Amino acid sequence: MRPLEYKDGILKLIDQTKLPSEYKVVDCATYMEVADAIRDMIVRGAPAIGVSAAYGVAIGALSARDGSKEEFFCELDEICNVLRGTRPTAVNLFWAIDRVYRKALDNRDRSVSEIKDIIAQEACNMDCEDVETNKAIGMHGNKLIKNNYTILTHCNAGALATCDYGTALSVMRMAHSEGKNIRVIADETRPYLQGARLTAWELKQDGIPVTLICDNMAGHFMKLGKIDCVIVGADRIAVNGDTANKIGTYSVAVLAKENNIPFYVAAPVSTIDFSMQTGDSIPIEERSREEVTHIKGIPVAPEGIDVMNPAFDVTPSRYITAIITEKGIAYPPFEKNLKDME
Amino acid sequence: MRPLEYKDGILKLIDQTKLPSEYKVVDCATYMEVADAIRDMIVRGAPAIGVSAAYGVAIGALSARDGSKEEFFCELDEICNVLRGTRPTAVNLFWAIDRVYRKALDNRDRSVSEIKDIIAQEACNMDCEDVETNKAIGMHGNKLIKNNYTILTHCNAGALATCDYGTALSVMRMAHSEGKNIRVIADETRPYLQGARLTAWELKQDGIPVTLICDNMAGHFMKLGKIDCVIVGADRIAVNGDTANKIGTYSVAVLAKENNIPFYVAAPVSTIDFSMQTGDSIPIEERSREEVTHIKGIPVAPEGIDVMNPAFDVTPSRYITAIITEKGIAYPPFEKNLKDME
Repeated sequence: MRPLEYKDGILKLIDQTKLPSEYKVVDCATYMEVADAIRDMIVRGAPAIGVSAAYGVAIGALSARDGSKEEFFCELDEICNVLRGTRPTAVNLFWAIDRVYRKALDNRDRSVSEIKDIIAQEACNMDCEDVETNKAIGMHGNKLIKNNYTILTHCNAGALATCDYGTALSVMRMAHSEGKNIRVIADETRPYLQGARLTAWELKQDGIPVTLICDNMAGHFMKLGKIDCVIVGADRIAVNGDTANKIGTYSVAVLAKENNIPFYVAAPVSTIDFSMQTGDSIPIEERSREEVTHIKGIPVAPEGIDVMNPAFDVTPSRYITAIITEKGIAYPPFEKNLKDME
Repeated sequence: MRPLEYKDGILKLIDQTKLPSEYKVVDCATYMEVADAIRDMIVRGAPAIGVSAAYGVAIGALSARDGSKEEFFCELDEICNVLRGTRPTAVNLFWAIDRVYRKALDNRDRSVSEIKDIIAQEACNMDCEDVETNKAIGMHGNKLIKNNYTILTHCNAGALATCDYGTALSVMRMAHSEGKNIRVIADETRPYLQGARLTAWELKQDGIPVTLICDNMAGHFMKLGKIDCVIVGADRIAVNGDTANKIGTYSVAVLAKENNIPFYVAAPVSTIDFSMQTGDSIPIEERSREEVTHIKGIPVAPEGIDVMNPAFDVTPSRYITAIITEKGIAYPPFEKNLKDME
């Protein structure tokens, strides 16, 4: 299940704001349309945002005005800046844009036309690499899953959040495809309901048993001994293991620790921000009040009520049992063991 | 703000399923209508359910078939049983029904007509007592609130959950009316959104500053140091202090403890079940899957998805800083200090 497909200068995205009631594909033919799609969460999930942005750079470069190479790089700068400005928390966005930009710079001696092709090729490479990365995450993570496990997940770290397979959900897919009897409990993940709308839908399509709960029920089921482990994705991981992920992840992690349940983060190495020592300085995106006060356009709160709507939180590394990457499983001390993966 | 008013054999209830978008009053002219209103959450909140059920008994008794006293008590039994079967977790329901039934029994030497009046009078007494009880809870709890406090609450333990003032919200009302500068953060409280629909609405009407968040954000704001204390209501409190309350309360309590934030329960003594030694045996109501999969009739999850929807959880007493009742503030050891309030 691929949420994005690039072909001939067009990025096709499954509109994730419409799932599961409507399956609609959106065509982005300009980099501004890609930027809007990221900002409006038509595509979301740190790895999928990263690769979409890379394709956005490629699409922008393709339609760059004819001119000198200097003008081209000037325009490329502008394209990258617009795409960087779409969402602040997921580091994969910046990592992906920097990677295609760096590739263009490395090839600045070539013609503008060649550089455009190189950028598009690099975005395609990242797309393919992400799929391989996620398979490897699934393979490593699978070692942590025993038969008859019930696994809690929060938000959607699935195929829809990546180029395929997912990160946290790749682990579940691998365990399931190996014949392990697993069951997933999906937090609905307010306000955007990625768990209800996307994770539940994805897993159901794959025939993996999944039960939907509200976010505030996870602790209750942990206390009752009904959850064997937690696996979530990540939007940015600091060098010390502190992890920014969808709002509510911190609460799940605290509850897991309190109930002696392993808490795993599954993410590609590109999610690790090696320039950030701790999670304290990770910027947290604040989204619109309407996400909380309205559901599918219907008001569920008094008019004009004050709202806070942080899209992410930071889970301190002391709550994290291990971080599953494509290069293997990192245990504490993360400071040393994540650095080894750089 | 009174969610219920009884007059001349009719119980008028604010339809809390419709708030805040619509203010509608429902008339219950039979005990079956009262039972339906409790089951369908037109009226909800442990104290309000209790008094509504007492009025339900009164309404049922009023329209009892003419017959012998034995037949009357037989019918009264049936009425009480129907009302007892509406919701399993809140002990106030059973306590209130038992109290009016006991009053009738104590007066079995009187005429059926007199007994009917006595039942109605007892229900009225309970209504008035609840208002006084809540004022006393507010007065005692207010001692715990300092100027400039930000107070988190979960669900609605407000006027709408009682006969007036509320329990947890009575504390906030008292602090506010004394001129303390307080701010309330209200968890929206999925799936039924009592926090978004009722708490935010009630407090806004009273001019008490309130900010709405999703349930999964509370931990994040605790970690950031933005919450000074938590106050919630209760549906049933065991002798050892274990407290059943709206699903999600346990998670809030664990997060508060982890962040060294006081966690208070505000409830009348009638919420204490002196027959229950620990919270392990409190029955937890499981409600319909549609409450989770649909919001105001709109689907937000894949069709046919498995759902778990417990309406309550139990917070072990080790997470509770103090229990605020109309008789004062009980601190641990609760086993001793709650017994003293019996």
